[in-house]
Amino acid sequence: LAKNKRSGFMTTFDQLQKGIRKNARSNDINSYLRSLTRDAISYLANNASIVDLTSKVTGKEYFSYSIDGTKSRAVNKLLYRDMEMAEIFLELLQSDEIRGNISSDDITSACYTITMSLACYIDITNKGDRQTPGTFFEYLITYMLTKHFKSDPSTRVRVDIGDDKVSLTMDLILSVDDDKTKYHIAVKNSTRERASEIWAHQRILDKAFGDNTYTGLFIGLCETKLDHKINEVTEICVPDQWRAYQQFLSALHTIYYVDVPRAYKNLNQKPPYIVVKQIGDFYYDVPQE
Amino acid sequence: LAKNKRSGFMTTFDQLQKGIRKNARSNDINSYLRSLTRDAISYLANNASIVDLTSKVTGKEYFSYSIDGTKSRAVNKLLYRDMEMAEIFLELLQSDEIRGNISSDDITSACYTITMSLACYIDITNKGDRQTPGTFFEYLITYMLTKHFKSDPSTRVRVDIGDDKVSLTMDLILSVDDDKTKYHIAVKNSTRERASEIWAHQRILDKAFGDNTYTGLFIGLCETKLDHKINEVTEICVPDQWRAYQQFLSALHTIYYVDVPRAYKNLNQKPPYIVVKQIGDFYYDVPQE
Repeated sequence: LAKNKRSGFMTTFDQLQKGIRKNARSNDINSYLRSLTRDAISYLANNASIVDLTSKVTGKEYFSYSIDGTKSRAVNKLLYRDMEMAEIFLELLQSDEIRGNISSDDITSACYTITMSLACYIDITNKGDRQTPGTFFEYLITYMLTKHFKSDPSTRVRVDIGDDKVSLTMDLILSVDDDKTKYHIAVKNSTRERASEIWAHQRILDKAFGDNTYTGLFIGLCETKLDHKINEVTEICVPDQWRAYQQFLSALHTIYYVDVPRAYKNLNQKPPYIVVKQIGDFYYDVPQE
Repeated sequence: LAKNKRSGFMTTFDQLQKGIRKNARSNDINSYLRSLTRDAISYLANNASIVDLTSKVTGKEYFSYSIDGTKSRAVNKLLYRDMEMAEIFLELLQSDEIRGNISSDDITSACYTITMSLACYIDITNKGDRQTPGTFFEYLITYMLTKHFKSDPSTRVRVDIGDDKVSLTMDLILSVDDDKTKYHIAVKNSTRERASEIWAHQRILDKAFGDNTYTGLFIGLCETKLDHKINEVTEICVPDQWRAYQQFLSALHTIYYVDVPRAYKNLNQKPPYIVVKQIGDFYYDVPQE
């Protein structure tokens, strides 16, 4: 039975994957997200036990789901909610009525719950699979952004190098309002040693197409690390490196996290002023198309 | 007995690690490198069998060491030699007499043999450990470069950001000839998605200290990938991304590989002219201090 359930779950995931490629902002995507979240939450509630973790992050508490000694990643207790919150958000997302009807905090919690329930489900049922949770987060964000901007996603730009037209791959490129506004949006579960790439790509766009042609955003899930041996959670942050990137490489407009790392929160208070906010703020910052 | 041998091997590795931190260009380093290479080569010769691999790289052939079904990474047949070649190179390295006494091809083969014998030994005796082979390559290169430049290694630079002095970590910083010449040298086993960091760091140095203050080099091992299921070897290269980095981020002076990836070999033939050479050429390009 458990095996059948998992196979049904992965079939829905495959449908989501194909759906995103076909039409990232169709209502089908919404029902796949809803179905996967519901199944993951109910599987975890019925089968997993809760393991309390030691938090090394001031102001944050974490737990982990566990089955037969296999532990999921660390889950932030304050952010993680239930299916009801996820449903409310997905409902409003489908009808393009987010702004004004749900608070920034609740949007953030809903995104966290949707992403982390699936991630924990995969952590436990397919140990070592980092790719499925990673792409799932990208799909959720792609759906949210393409809905918001009423624009189809692209991952490619063509730039001139010498006599060649060279095609480069970015995480997400959105062209809005008849090409009047363009966004370069990096989407990553966590940055680790890959943060420089975000500012590097933004600089390529600034130089190839002119400053301010592409507005640069980065959307991340979290920067937590769980030491499985001692059940201890830390946040891996490199604020000085980030400040150097913003100063010497390019200027990202805003960085949105679902679980905002403490060490990045106040980077807007001194030069070069990196603005880091929770994902829910996006809907109150950026006017809808 | 096998366990005792491995424990002796790791003791020598720890001595190498401590030695590099204490004095990267002492003769002790040379004997640790020699001892580890001798032990790895003889262990592999006496215990492992050779598995032929399917090469998807034109002009390169590969094999893998195997014990009880555990396979090592892919080894380039033409580059991999024996202890004698490694000894000759390490001997000349110790007496600072490389240039003119050993060809660029033989230097390259010796570096490959030293690095890959240890890497294969670790692949087989401590499956999943990627870190030990990675740091070993960094130690070999650090020893070679600090000897060549008669300069102690550093990994930190301090840059001004706003009113702050911020300390940034680079792979290797060498200050030569009473600070008249400075090198920023990235050292990595393979670049994968981390290549942009090399050009990003170079740009930070160019902007913070002025163009041409730091000469930028990258030294890499190889870009091969072995599919363990079908025994097939490919090279993972992104030449267009590299050209964009060289054009829009910063200009690296030269890139040296031990096993030069085919797709990077000819990047010097059109703008923005990235020079990629085999590691042995370093000794014929850069005058010794």
